[in-house]
Amino acid sequence: MIIIMKMNTAQANLDAVVSRVEREGFRTHLSQGEERTIIGVIGDERKLDRGAINRMDGVDRVVPVLRPFKLASRDFQPTDSKISINGHVFGGKKVIVMAGPCSVESLEQMRETALAVKEAGAHLLRGGAFKPRSSPYSFQGMGEEGLKILAQVREETGLHIITEVMAPEQVELVTRYADVLQIGTRNMQNYALLNVVGQSNMPVLLKRGMMSTIEELLMSAEYIMSNGNHKVILCERGIRTFEKYTRNTLDINAVPVLKELTHLPVVVDPSHATGRWTLVKAASKAAVAAGADGLIVEVHPNPAEALSDGEQSLKPHRFAEMMAEVRLVAEAVGRTI
Amino acid sequence: MIIIMKMNTAQANLDAVVSRVEREGFRTHLSQGEERTIIGVIGDERKLDRGAINRMDGVDRVVPVLRPFKLASRDFQPTDSKISINGHVFGGKKVIVMAGPCSVESLEQMRETALAVKEAGAHLLRGGAFKPRSSPYSFQGMGEEGLKILAQVREETGLHIITEVMAPEQVELVTRYADVLQIGTRNMQNYALLNVVGQSNMPVLLKRGMMSTIEELLMSAEYIMSNGNHKVILCERGIRTFEKYTRNTLDINAVPVLKELTHLPVVVDPSHATGRWTLVKAASKAAVAAGADGLIVEVHPNPAEALSDGEQSLKPHRFAEMMAEVRLVAEAVGRTI
Amino acid sequence: MIIIMKMNTAQANLDAVVSRVEREGFRTHLSQGEERTIIGVIGDERKLDRGAINRMDGVDRVVPVLRPFKLASRDFQPTDSKISINGHVFGGKKVIVMAGPCSVESLEQMRETALAVKEAGAHLLRGGAFKPRSSPYSFQGMGEEGLKILAQVREETGLHIITEVMAPEQVELVTRYADVLQIGTRNMQNYALLNVVGQSNMPVLLKRGMMSTIEELLMSAEYIMSNGNHKVILCERGIRTFEKYTRNTLDINAVPVLKELTHLPVVVDPSHATGRWTLVKAASKAAVAAGADGLIVEVHPNPAEALSDGEQSLKPHRFAEMMAEVRLVAEAVGRTI
Amino acid sequence: MIIIMKMNTAQANLDAVVSRVEREGFRTHLSQGEERTIIGVIGDERKLDRGAINRMDGVDRVVPVLRPFKLASRDFQPTDSKISINGHVFGGKKVIVMAGPCSVESLEQMRETALAVKEAGAHLLRGGAFKPRSSPYSFQGMGEEGLKILAQVREETGLHIITEVMAPEQVELVTRYADVLQIGTRNMQNYALLNVVGQSNMPVLLKRGMMSTIEELLMSAEYIMSNGNHKVILCERGIRTFEKYTRNTLDINAVPVLKELTHLPVVVDPSHATGRWTLVKAASKAAVAAGADGLIVEVHPNPAEALSDGEQSLKPHRFAEMMAEVRLVAEAVGRTI
Repeated sequence: MIIIMKMNTAQANLDAVVSRVEREGFRTHLSQGEERTIIGVIGDERKLDRGAINRMDGVDRVVPVLRPFKLASRDFQPTDSKISINGHVFGGKKVIVMAGPCSVESLEQMRETALAVKEAGAHLLRGGAFKPRSSPYSFQGMGEEGLKILAQVREETGLHIITEVMAPEQVELVTRYADVLQIGTRNMQNYALLNVVGQSNMPVLLKRGMMSTIEELLMSAEYIMSNGNHKVILCERGIRTFEKYTRNTLDINAVPVLKELTHLPVVVDPSHATGRWTLVKAASKAAVAAGADGLIVEVHPNPAEALSDGEQSLKPHRFAEMMAEVRLVAEAVGRTI
Repeated sequence: MIIIMKMNTAQANLDAVVSRVEREGFRTHLSQGEERTIIGVIGDERKLDRGAINRMDGVDRVVPVLRPFKLASRDFQPTDSKISINGHVFGGKKVIVMAGPCSVESLEQMRETALAVKEAGAHLLRGGAFKPRSSPYSFQGMGEEGLKILAQVREETGLHIITEVMAPEQVELVTRYADVLQIGTRNMQNYALLNVVGQSNMPVLLKRGMMSTIEELLMSAEYIMSNGNHKVILCERGIRTFEKYTRNTLDINAVPVLKELTHLPVVVDPSHATGRWTLVKAASKAAVAAGADGLIVEVHPNPAEALSDGEQSLKPHRFAEMMAEVRLVAEAVGRTI
Repeated sequence: MIIIMKMNTAQANLDAVVSRVEREGFRTHLSQGEERTIIGVIGDERKLDRGAINRMDGVDRVVPVLRPFKLASRDFQPTDSKISINGHVFGGKKVIVMAGPCSVESLEQMRETALAVKEAGAHLLRGGAFKPRSSPYSFQGMGEEGLKILAQVREETGLHIITEVMAPEQVELVTRYADVLQIGTRNMQNYALLNVVGQSNMPVLLKRGMMSTIEELLMSAEYIMSNGNHKVILCERGIRTFEKYTRNTLDINAVPVLKELTHLPVVVDPSHATGRWTLVKAASKAAVAAGADGLIVEVHPNPAEALSDGEQSLKPHRFAEMMAEVRLVAEAVGRTI
Repeated sequence: MIIIMKMNTAQANLDAVVSRVEREGFRTHLSQGEERTIIGVIGDERKLDRGAINRMDGVDRVVPVLRPFKLASRDFQPTDSKISINGHVFGGKKVIVMAGPCSVESLEQMRETALAVKEAGAHLLRGGAFKPRSSPYSFQGMGEEGLKILAQVREETGLHIITEVMAPEQVELVTRYADVLQIGTRNMQNYALLNVVGQSNMPVLLKRGMMSTIEELLMSAEYIMSNGNHKVILCERGIRTFEKYTRNTLDINAVPVLKELTHLPVVVDPSHATGRWTLVKAASKAAVAAGADGLIVEVHPNPAEALSDGEQSLKPHRFAEMMAEVRLVAEAVGRTI
């Protein structure tokens, strides 16, 4: 941490900052410029409160040197984490594809979708039983009945299940049926929920908050990991910007940035990141070309009748077409699918 | 709801859309332009899924006519809602001021702060016992011990308490000690939490998500209200933008916009909305001038030693100074304080 | 400037950075942490290219210490700049109000508006003869004919004129008729234009780019000032955010921030900052409460017939009503109007 | 255009809107809902001012039906525009690559870069002689001397030249030396400049404003095209968001969106869109995978000594490596390079 003092600040202010920092067990190193003094702080700055020091008299700014996350960082673990689900390994050479409807609506709908996406080459089945909807008047999901449908379709098709968990008290229930727990974009900073899934042993797909920075995403992963659960898969799903033609803006830069900063696998959700089915294929190819370890895609047998997100869902034959094209891109970047 | 068809779309597509909409119990009205047909949908469109219709063949766009919130809207209730806490009425002529530290740190800190803010004219005491922090390594709040301190200080000073609740299972505990439940910015769309506080009988201060629209804020209020609890106070606390000089951007427009759209009281948090104590006074005066019904302000006896948010906390004498100036502005716009 | 090296970087990289910086005439100061070395650079860092140093081997990050603007900064000139137009002083105790239509449409329209806003207490008349419109098919302004109308109305009413200049080659023409040159939001970084108005002797109202930071606004003022023209009035006019209910988001924080950072006068445009006439009064009162030195407001005798921006224009009687209310707020913060 | 009236508005208001619209030569069509009346406007709505109608009594909202651009739209011209420069065709099967330094600094630097990028497979040479810099104290480009260097290097290497033009009065000069005129991000809405390049016969690469929507980009293309010059190449170069780890956020969605909306070629600038050289390769592959018709990339023989943008420039051997990988992706999506 570097503390930049104001121009020509009084010696007493400087002394107070130094003694405060040293009192908390850090060493300091002063650098006297022409107009300002700069204090270098030596030690693990994550334990020091930036805000409070910033507030001391004579302090102009505090600049962190270290990143605030640790277990998630590539400095801590240089090699890629690998997370295996039913033999499909996130973080390896293969691009893992999860596909299925936004919401579980019926056994028939899930079975039909599962068979179609499996046929097209998907590795896991997605489907929501608990749905966070911005309106209390919208369909809120089938709840446990939906989880049972998912489990039965797993039985029939062999596809493992990823499904969302929205509240701490749902974790135990969902864990009984699911293979991967999904934390949705609105819950990325629901710390009570992160703590509970961190205490479980389940793989977690953590979606980036639509309003969260890359660093905040890694801090939320750190919450889960610091509770003991290191099986975290990160998901870029589009961020909110001023552009309104698309539902969200896919932050494709986040893929290589995350691969630099962390050892955790990184997947992309091209359905939410665009909000329009006509764009999903292009976004999926871009994601894989940029280095994503996987995709999570909305597929529905009849999008115009879907109870949620029909606008961005692919029909099964479009998904098969997309898989064929994504496969070629995956091979061009040295991956399989 | 208005459905705009694509140029020169086939009659079969048009028929399919009309029959879908009518099957769900709505009436339709066709308007034939030179190049396009437009379908007006008559009925309560909140029950119709825009996305699914958007996805039908031949549909270009779907435009909602009604706003998606109802109980919270001024159309539903034209007169201002008034919410009284210990005789202080949110939504009336008086501007209600809540003040106190970000976190409860000790009995002495809370007592000293409470006496100071009461002396300066504050009406309620704020202080967090459960703290949502972006890092798992930061101070997470004192928990129930903090709530007990708040209750004791209420006993001693007569100031009622507003404090944050972060998870559904905390609601019962916090309700035992607090007078107003605060939902923080990261939990504005934590629907499990909204449902539980909606089933309680407690006044709720609902903070706008730092990247949520005004409409989404009202939809979250609607979640609480549709569960039976109509005592919702809305709080503008700054939104996330590209500007980085301040922690957030105070969306001052939101104050008159909300007063137009809803009957619920609207307060402003100038501390988070700026992130710098030097700006809090100006932001508070602007908020009251724009029509806010209240303020929630961070005050700490020794900000440089605060365990959180010291950077944006006022010292008690600065808060007293601010109150004196805000009072003049309140009077200039026909309010008291 | 502070250069933070990567963890455990080679001595050769460190030497190369030090010798590069010293070669350009700066002194350096090394600070050795546990894992990293930090290089303090002593001298006027504005002359050093951050990007290039950032790109050197072994460099992790470069942190500026000084602000990049100089002539515009309060460090350079601690006392408020005062800019007088026809006896009305921007940057003094009086809040200066500029009012008039978006576009000059006819002599009658300008005359009627001028008389009405003068009667209500406005100090200058605004009106655009050259209009930047996002569509080439929209009304582009009356050009020189519009300037002549403005000059004639000044003759008749005594109100001085502020009007927009869009291109370097228009500056001479507009200068012949106007009293204040306005640089619009889309031209805040039109450096060719800034350079030309910087070489003139005319007061300039510089509008913040709708997606420019406060620092960039000050850098654009610096362009004008470094050409010799110090008569710059800054204008906050709303920024672009994800919120779509209003046309822009008024960044009210920018007012006290600018008053801290710079000695230049700061005014607010509540019409563009909201985009809706019903919000203009509240935004104006907030601006004055926050410390603005002036307002620039759109007023049109018949907004529904306006050739541009009718949606956000006040009718004259509404403007008079607004002025009465703003006056009370101005007095409450120790200003006149 | 659809005009949505307020609930239970008076008949007189309705009549006034209808007569206003019909007076301007449009036909209307009324649709009576349960609570509201909706007026459909039939005719070319681009000629009707939305804002003014929005401002009429009783009007709730005005919804456009048509897109505001015409010449640039795929409805107007369904087949891809092809723009040929020195035999390299933008908008065809081949992905066109433009490469070179941010600024022209010397003949040696340009010659060395040109030979290297040509060797690696680039088709055009980029380099700025006029540089828009946010600080007046930064290097502003070599001006005409820089243009002469570019022309000489074209002579020597056969690579045609793309270079930026910043002001209307520079167009004639730059046209004498360049093969493609570049309009930079800060000038996307510099309408005086757009009009002048629109009157020239030169191919124009129009960069998206960092704060502009896709629709605004197309409106700026429309400015150029409506002046007679249809040779417009669109360039996505990253937009400004809250994410600060990267300089900008590459809006990869914009590529397929633009290919849907317009017939004009679309290229991507991965250097500005990321701001960090380590991300340029991934961004380039993503762009081509998403359907971009070309790339414009910053390459500098010695980025640490560059006078601008060193941080995001590739060294020649990294560029060659990038080209090899991009080629594989291009082939995977049925393109050549």
